[in-house]
Amino acid sequence: MKPIQVGLLGIGTVGSGVFNVLQRNQEEIRRRAGRGIEVTMVADLDVERARAVAGEHVQVVSDARAVIANPDIDIVVELIGGYGIAKALVLEAIAAGKHVVTANKALLAVHGTEIFAAAAAKGVMVAFEAAVAGGIPIIKALREGLTANRIQWIAGIINGTTNFILSEMRDKGLDFDVVLKEAQALGYAEADPTFDIEGVDAAHKATIMSAIAFGIPVQFDKAYVEGITQLAGADIKYAEQLGYRIKLLGIAKRRTGEGVDGVELRVHPTLIPAKRLIANVEGAMNAVVVQADAVGTTLYYGKGAGSEPTASAVIADLVDIARLASADPGHRVPYLAFQPHTLDQAQAALPVLPASEFVTSYYLRLRVADQAGVLTKVTGLLAGAGISIDAVLQREADEVGGEGAAQTDLIILTHETREGTMNDAIVQMQALPTVLAPITRIRKEELN
Amino acid sequence: MKPIQVGLLGIGTVGSGVFNVLQRNQEEIRRRAGRGIEVTMVADLDVERARAVAGEHVQVVSDARAVIANPDIDIVVELIGGYGIAKALVLEAIAAGKHVVTANKALLAVHGTEIFAAAAAKGVMVAFEAAVAGGIPIIKALREGLTANRIQWIAGIINGTTNFILSEMRDKGLDFDVVLKEAQALGYAEADPTFDIEGVDAAHKATIMSAIAFGIPVQFDKAYVEGITQLAGADIKYAEQLGYRIKLLGIAKRRTGEGVDGVELRVHPTLIPAKRLIANVEGAMNAVVVQADAVGTTLYYGKGAGSEPTASAVIADLVDIARLASADPGHRVPYLAFQPHTLDQAQAALPVLPASEFVTSYYLRLRVADQAGVLTKVTGLLAGAGISIDAVLQREADEVGGEGAAQTDLIILTHETREGTMNDAIVQMQALPTVLAPITRIRKEELN
Repeated sequence: MKPIQVGLLGIGTVGSGVFNVLQRNQEEIRRRAGRGIEVTMVADLDVERARAVAGEHVQVVSDARAVIANPDIDIVVELIGGYGIAKALVLEAIAAGKHVVTANKALLAVHGTEIFAAAAAKGVMVAFEAAVAGGIPIIKALREGLTANRIQWIAGIINGTTNFILSEMRDKGLDFDVVLKEAQALGYAEADPTFDIEGVDAAHKATIMSAIAFGIPVQFDKAYVEGITQLAGADIKYAEQLGYRIKLLGIAKRRTGEGVDGVELRVHPTLIPAKRLIANVEGAMNAVVVQADAVGTTLYYGKGAGSEPTASAVIADLVDIARLASADPGHRVPYLAFQPHTLDQAQAALPVLPASEFVTSYYLRLRVADQAGVLTKVTGLLAGAGISIDAVLQREADEVGGEGAAQTDLIILTHETREGTMNDAIVQMQALPTVLAPITRIRKEELN
Repeated sequence: MKPIQVGLLGIGTVGSGVFNVLQRNQEEIRRRAGRGIEVTMVADLDVERARAVAGEHVQVVSDARAVIANPDIDIVVELIGGYGIAKALVLEAIAAGKHVVTANKALLAVHGTEIFAAAAAKGVMVAFEAAVAGGIPIIKALREGLTANRIQWIAGIINGTTNFILSEMRDKGLDFDVVLKEAQALGYAEADPTFDIEGVDAAHKATIMSAIAFGIPVQFDKAYVEGITQLAGADIKYAEQLGYRIKLLGIAKRRTGEGVDGVELRVHPTLIPAKRLIANVEGAMNAVVVQADAVGTTLYYGKGAGSEPTASAVIADLVDIARLASADPGHRVPYLAFQPHTLDQAQAALPVLPASEFVTSYYLRLRVADQAGVLTKVTGLLAGAGISIDAVLQREADEVGGEGAAQTDLIILTHETREGTMNDAIVQMQALPTVLAPITRIRKEELN
C-alpha cells in the first residue's frame, strides 16, 4: 500500500517532535499501520528553521495554502495554534477534502461545531488526541474505550504549568509569584502565562472532554473559569492539615434529578483528598479521572505537553486515519464520540449550567476577631442557609490588630450545597463585624 | 441501520453484566455506535438462570453451537473461559464467519496464534479488551493510543486478588494464609485461587500485553511465573522501612544492546518505590504503567474485574466491531497491534529471554549469625560477582539459637545485575556457615 502523505502546518516544538518520531519509529509505525506514514511537505514562516528540521527530502514552503493545495497530501496536521489563521486553514483543508489532525484545543473548544460540521459535509476526519492532556490517550479512552458507559463526571489535571506551580508552592512553601518566575525560567510557563494560570487552557480541554463524555456540542463560552493567581500559600497549608491537596481541576459533571438536568463545566482550584491517586500527580504531569456507571473509576496519567509526548498523540491520530480513511464515513468513530445529528437534542436536554447551580462542597477561610461567639455566629449563618459543616479548624490567635484585638484564621469545610446558596451565605458572613477580611472560598471535591 | 445482533456464550457474572449494561445504556450506546447493539441469543448450560437474566425477548439455548449456527448473529461473545470447549467454540464461530469478542486471557495467551490466524483467514475480527485489566481500556491504549511509540516496558498490577491480599498483608500486618481466607470470604479470591496466587492469571495478561507492545506472537509457555504464596510478612515490613512496597507485577520489557536482544516476560512479587503512583494502587484495583520512547511514562488505572467493569470492556469491543466490521479487513486495527505477517520475524529478532538473562535489582534477606565479619563476607561475595550494593539494613540481634548464638536479619538491596549472576552469588552466600536459613530473594524495579 502506498504511504500516507502528511503535510505539516507549523514545525515548531510539536511539529519537530512529529517529524522526528515518525522518522525514528517509521519501521514500527509501518508494522502497526500497515503502510508508511511520511511527512512530505512542511509549511512554516521560518523556512530556514523548517528546512533544518525536515531535511532535504521534504518540500518546505512558507505558504500553508501550498500544502493544502497539494493533491498528493492526504492529511494536513495543523500545529499553528490559536483561533485566527489556524481556523481558516483548517476549514480550507477540509474544503479541499483533506483529513485534518490538530493539537489546537482553543480552536476546537470555541469553533468545534463549525469545524466538525464542515468535516462531516466533506466526509473527512478531524482528529485531535493531542488537544487534551498531550500524550495521554484520553480522547480515545473516552470516545472508544468507555463507549458502554454513561459517564458521570470527569476531573482532570490538564494543565501542566499550573500543576507544576501548585506542586512547588506546596513542596517549598513558596508564594505564587515566586514560583511562576521559577516556572518561566525552567520553561514550564510561557513568557505570557495568562492562558495557563487563569485556567483558560484547562477550560478549553475540559470543554472538549465534556462534549465527548456527554454527547453535547462544545460550549466554551459557557464554561466557568477560575485560575490559580489568587491562591495563597496559607490555603495550601491549611488544606494539607485537613488531609487535602489543592489542584487546578477541569471538571465536567452530569447532573440529573432534583429538578436540574444539565452539565457542570468548570475549571478552578479544588481541594481533593490527599489519599486519592490524582492528588499525588506532581510537577508538570497530567491525569484525568473518569467516573462512569459500568466501569466505575478509571484514571489516565502521563505527560500533558512537550514535543514528543504531544507528537505521540498526533501520530496516533495519523495511524487511525491511515486505517479508517478508506472506511465508509458512516462507520467511522464520530468526531465527538456521539453521532453528530444527536448533539443538538442533547444540548437542549443537558444544558451547561450556570455557576449558581453547581453543587459542590467548600473550603472557607475567614479572618476573624479572636473573641467568644464568632464561631457560633458563622456556623449559625451557615446552618440557617441549610449548609452543613464537615470540619472546622480554628487557629490560635496569631496577630494583634492596631487596637489590640487578636485575630485568627477560621477554616471551615462544608458538605455539598448549591453554589448560589453558598454565595448568599458568604455575603451574610462577610457582613459580620467580626469577619475582618474578604472570605476565601475554594471548592472541594471528594472524587469518590 | 439495522441493529448488530450479538450472541452470548455464557451468561454468568460477566455475561449478565454485558446484558444489563447494554439494556440500561442502549440509547447512549446507539448514539455512539450509530446503530443498536442487541443481545438476541444466549447459550448457557443453566437455561433457567439464563432465562431469568435475559428475559422473554431473548432466545435462550443450552447449546452454544446453536448460537454460532444462527445466521442472524453478527458477533459471538465467548464468556465461558478456559482452554477447553471455549477454544473449540471460538474457532467454530470464526469458521462460521462471525466476529468474536472474548474476555478469555488464558485462551488467547496460550492459543492466540492459532485463533488469530484462523480469524485472519476468514476476515473476521477478534477483540479482547476485557481479557487484560478488566474495564481499563489498556489494550486500546497500547494498540492504538501509543502507535507512535517504541514501547520499552510495561509493568502492571493486573491481578486484583493478589493485590488485595498484598494490600491487606501490609495494612494489617497479617500473614498470607490468613488474608487469603479473608479474601475468599469477601469474594475477592476464588475457592481454588491457584491461578491467581501462583501468578498464572497475571502471566496470561502480561503475555498478551507483550505481544501487543513488541509485535511478537503470544508465548505464554516462555513466561517466567512466580506467585505470592511464599511471601513473608517480614519482607513486606522490611521493604516498607527501605521505602518500597511489594506488588505482584506482570512485566514485559524490551532488551536491546549489550549483546542481548529479546523480551523479558515475567510475573513475580516486586519491590517498587513507595512514592510511585502504582505503588499506591490498593485493594483489588488494577493499574498498568507503560514506558515508551516518545510519550514517556503513562499509567492506566481502574477495576480489573467484576461484572460491569468487565462488561464495559466487552461492549467497547462490540461498538468497535459495529463500526469497523464493514471496513476492508486490510484497514482494520491488527489483532495484536502489528500486522500479522510481521510477527514471526519479530519473534526471531526479539525472543523471549530465559530467566537467567533478566536484568533487574534485588532485595535479599539473609538469616545470619550475629557475629563480626558476616556482613564483610556477604558483601565480599557480591563484590566478587560484580554485583554492587545499593543499601544494607542490618537488624539488631533478635533471637538466641540453641547454642546461645544470636541471630539477625541482614537485608541487602542491590543495583541491577544479570539474574544468572545473582543466582550464582546466592548459591555461594547460602554456603557460608554463618548464613543460617534459605536466602529470600525478591526482585526490585525502580519503574522510572
